[in-house]
Amino acid sequence: MTELERIRHSAAHVLATAILKIWPEAQFAAGPPVENGFYYDVELPHRISPEDFARIEEEMKKEIKANHVFERVEISRADAVAMAVRGELAALATRGTPSKFKLDIVQNIPEGETITLFRNGEFTDLCAGPHVMRTGNISAFKLTHVASAYYKGDERNPQLQRIYGTAFKNKTAMEEYFTMLEEAKKRDHRKIGAEMGLYAIDSEYVGPGMPLWLPKGTVLVEELEKLAKETEFAGGYVRVRTPHLAKEKMYKTSGHLPYYAESMFPPMELKESGEGEGSEAERYYLKAMNCPHHHRIFAAEPRSYRDLPLRLAEYGCCYRYEQSGELFGLMRVRSLNMNDAHIYCTEEQFAEEFRAVNEMYLQYFKVFGLEKYQMRFSTHDPEKLGQKFVDEPELWKKTEDMVRRVLVESGINFIEVPNEAAFYGPKIDVQVWSAIGREFTIATNQVDFAVPAKFGLHYRDRDNTEKTPLCIHRAPLGTHERFIGFLIEHYAGNFPLWLAPEQVRVITLNDDPALIDYANPIISKLRAGMVRAEADFGSEPVKAKIAAAEKARVHTMLVIGHRDVEGGQVSVRLHGQGNVGAKLASEVVTEILEKIRTRG
Amino acid sequence: MTELERIRHSAAHVLATAILKIWPEAQFAAGPPVENGFYYDVELPHRISPEDFARIEEEMKKEIKANHVFERVEISRADAVAMAVRGELAALATRGTPSKFKLDIVQNIPEGETITLFRNGEFTDLCAGPHVMRTGNISAFKLTHVASAYYKGDERNPQLQRIYGTAFKNKTAMEEYFTMLEEAKKRDHRKIGAEMGLYAIDSEYVGPGMPLWLPKGTVLVEELEKLAKETEFAGGYVRVRTPHLAKEKMYKTSGHLPYYAESMFPPMELKESGEGEGSEAERYYLKAMNCPHHHRIFAAEPRSYRDLPLRLAEYGCCYRYEQSGELFGLMRVRSLNMNDAHIYCTEEQFAEEFRAVNEMYLQYFKVFGLEKYQMRFSTHDPEKLGQKFVDEPELWKKTEDMVRRVLVESGINFIEVPNEAAFYGPKIDVQVWSAIGREFTIATNQVDFAVPAKFGLHYRDRDNTEKTPLCIHRAPLGTHERFIGFLIEHYAGNFPLWLAPEQVRVITLNDDPALIDYANPIISKLRAGMVRAEADFGSEPVKAKIAAAEKARVHTMLVIGHRDVEGGQVSVRLHGQGNVGAKLASEVVTEILEKIRTRG
Repeated sequence: MTELERIRHSAAHVLATAILKIWPEAQFAAGPPVENGFYYDVELPHRISPEDFARIEEEMKKEIKANHVFERVEISRADAVAMAVRGELAALATRGTPSKFKLDIVQNIPEGETITLFRNGEFTDLCAGPHVMRTGNISAFKLTHVASAYYKGDERNPQLQRIYGTAFKNKTAMEEYFTMLEEAKKRDHRKIGAEMGLYAIDSEYVGPGMPLWLPKGTVLVEELEKLAKETEFAGGYVRVRTPHLAKEKMYKTSGHLPYYAESMFPPMELKESGEGEGSEAERYYLKAMNCPHHHRIFAAEPRSYRDLPLRLAEYGCCYRYEQSGELFGLMRVRSLNMNDAHIYCTEEQFAEEFRAVNEMYLQYFKVFGLEKYQMRFSTHDPEKLGQKFVDEPELWKKTEDMVRRVLVESGINFIEVPNEAAFYGPKIDVQVWSAIGREFTIATNQVDFAVPAKFGLHYRDRDNTEKTPLCIHRAPLGTHERFIGFLIEHYAGNFPLWLAPEQVRVITLNDDPALIDYANPIISKLRAGMVRAEADFGSEPVKAKIAAAEKARVHTMLVIGHRDVEGGQVSVRLHGQGNVGAKLASEVVTEILEKIRTRG
Repeated sequence: MTELERIRHSAAHVLATAILKIWPEAQFAAGPPVENGFYYDVELPHRISPEDFARIEEEMKKEIKANHVFERVEISRADAVAMAVRGELAALATRGTPSKFKLDIVQNIPEGETITLFRNGEFTDLCAGPHVMRTGNISAFKLTHVASAYYKGDERNPQLQRIYGTAFKNKTAMEEYFTMLEEAKKRDHRKIGAEMGLYAIDSEYVGPGMPLWLPKGTVLVEELEKLAKETEFAGGYVRVRTPHLAKEKMYKTSGHLPYYAESMFPPMELKESGEGEGSEAERYYLKAMNCPHHHRIFAAEPRSYRDLPLRLAEYGCCYRYEQSGELFGLMRVRSLNMNDAHIYCTEEQFAEEFRAVNEMYLQYFKVFGLEKYQMRFSTHDPEKLGQKFVDEPELWKKTEDMVRRVLVESGINFIEVPNEAAFYGPKIDVQVWSAIGREFTIATNQVDFAVPAKFGLHYRDRDNTEKTPLCIHRAPLGTHERFIGFLIEHYAGNFPLWLAPEQVRVITLNDDPALIDYANPIISKLRAGMVRAEADFGSEPVKAKIAAAEKARVHTMLVIGHRDVEGGQVSVRLHGQGNVGAKLASEVVTEILEKIRTRG
């Protein structure tokens, strides 16, 4: 447990202490630290609401000020049961009525495990710890919200109130956290997505979790694809296109069926005409991943070592059946457009290919101004070979050593996490932090030395023997859906020029034909260069026209008055920055084209 | 019936005459003219094979040389039945045994219809005509192949032999036809597709009719998309992206269900988690067309007359369930990538929008060097309003008048075909002829004044009332599959520079590092401009390397020897044309980039 988790876990105990001081009848279940804070589940006739938070926090502050020691006590199972029966667990003293949830928890602790209590002041809880030294170590805390939850997550059990809070090492860290949350709320991709008209979810006709990309959102999608195509072309990739479905045999071969079936859309039963009455219908599945189709493309032609590495790229659309309750805007969807590619290579080529993939990640981080990132390198556990991990001990060792060396040599920021590799090889998850410091996992990079063999893939080597290639699965931009969701927050919807749905708006001071005649060729020149330039030549006051453009997050506004016409100029305004001065129109056009080309 | 059809229909009678002279026991069913020729269905114990053709043709020539008149005779139903019973129909004289199929045909002629015989020499047939004047008018004919067919196409009926032939106005026309066929065989998209590695059909794992686009074919797909995106951007279209499935409600609303269900993939039954045991599962269908999704995008935001025309474009992938027996390479598939767009406009805007769509067609014809085209303008039949055609008599008249006027004013080559419009409005099918003169229907352009109302689409007009927009469905490039199949034949796989899968190959005289050092920066410059340029720096003889590039249909070969290095030059070879001379390397690079940019 990290220091921060210990602080939060201890704050949960202090929360329970405070609640008992106010409502002595409270019965507690579990109270763990969680991501970004902690909670405690409580059964209480009084319905706790945010209005109660000040009062509870007041009691918590007293407990912290008292600076009680967190005292650890080992006890026997029999004593623990007896205490629970007397109502002495998660309690200030003997309650008389049993601590019912704690009793159940005690009874479910496996034989042979040490049972411990933790005490702070009057409060005693059944708890494995660890905690901070004293309640005074909880320097900054705050209750945040309340939800309901079934005991042990089972709807047949009693419903409890789950009180959430958070705690930090100091006040500054906590303030930064809440500022970030506030900013994240303003930058919520669903809010900005609706304001800007980027996408729509049409649960009634299309289905939940399957975004329709509206024109402005489609710009983002297609600019990302263009970026990927250019980057991958430079990296020696070739592109392929595959259908969105395949026969059952495909996914039985890949191993996705039957194990992954719950995450896939249900099959379509297709009976081919001409087949007899008794013949079985073929089952077709929507693809949940692109790899099997790419494997079949590898297999479609005879391959020699001269063809390797073969890098097959596709921004492929996959379908996964996510539970409807877990769908969330663009971040958790059922239709996913993946920036996918599969690199088939020899063992000798692996290190160089893997290095190049990492370089590509870093290159993308630069394009998007991502300064903080971390790669999580997940490795296998030798004890679980043949169960959790494909039974190729030497290949695991060799590949993981190569990956580790590449990461170190490239100076990449990474941590190593044992026992979390994929079944078929080590993997790297890439975490990035948005401009407001929120973390997202956006992409993976995996080595696969099991599935190519399942599909019988092989190439003829220099020595004329047939060998199975290694395969690297990589998706630096993840899916359109998630990545655009991330970018919306990262840029707060104020996309850089190359990405902006509306790049330029040419605004005339009024609807004087002289101004319009001057403005039109400027728009034409921009649009001839594929710049998304629009006109606002209306008669509304220019201030209102500028305000409308600012509201629409137009990146660059070219404002044209009579003085601009005389000087062959335009007045340039940048979204959020205001007027940056007048310039020759021809220069401005050239600058815009160049800035877009270089994604500057 | 056209003159050519009359010739072919008459040739069918002459064929029957000849067969009877050889096999008097032959029983004939139907013998119509068809596309590119004619056939006659015959029941005969002898199995006719192409080896018999010379003998049959010999008899046919005699009949033609005799120059018999085709004599038309009206007879009563009773006489016709009597003749059939005596075996005098499709016969040289009385056969004794009944003309059994003709008897069945006579008995099925509706009451009140005139019954006619046609005689040429000894041969008499039950036939509605018309025919040419004399057998001598059949100046050029040829038997082509034999197939089997059930009487009336019903497998419970006897199986007959279908003898196919063709006939022309003169020998030259026939020779041209067979030369075209031969050329079409050489240009068969399946053959060239396999040679060039453009696509693969993987019936075992993916499914029949769903091409996997291999890297070289994907180049074609993506270049066509790029062309469409640029053309549509210039035309004021905006792009959208929609999922590949939708709920049943979508297709019930559009009217595709239940009527079109047979052409769609079967539904996926999806039960949302959290729904009760008794609740019905949702049915999801793969989309067979993009329009309903686009309609929902129109409906996703409130629209005003100021937003119109709204032109939504998408190269969307649809799925249609074609019978497996009808699948044919890229020409008849189950997964279709359509160059789709829907233009929502007011009635006042319609003519101009429709004109612009036609202009776009003509622009594409120019890009692909298509000199011969024809638009088939299908209109409604006022008598079938409310049945075959949506009951909007005034809208039909107004729209068809507008379409007709636009076609005439734009000087477009078109024919008008009554009674063949779509249910929801007039349509235009676009036929083009490939370089070898074969005709393809590749695209449609349809007016729709019914479906937008079904989806409740509306916009707020200037007068503050809500109105339903008209919708134009258009797809100038049709589907990737069919259009690329057509282009393969049109270009015989020798694609122009901008389309060529491998645009440039830089070939060194041998593997001398001095040559390679000179060649590498040339490749880099080309690839930096996104040119698909590859290297062949091997030690094989340069002749072999050139032959390999020619075989791979590389458009431009830059051959580099020591003299080229000294002069800063490259020797340019064009596929199929040979050496076109040496030029400064920098000039060649600029020329190639420019030629690609302008699709010259």
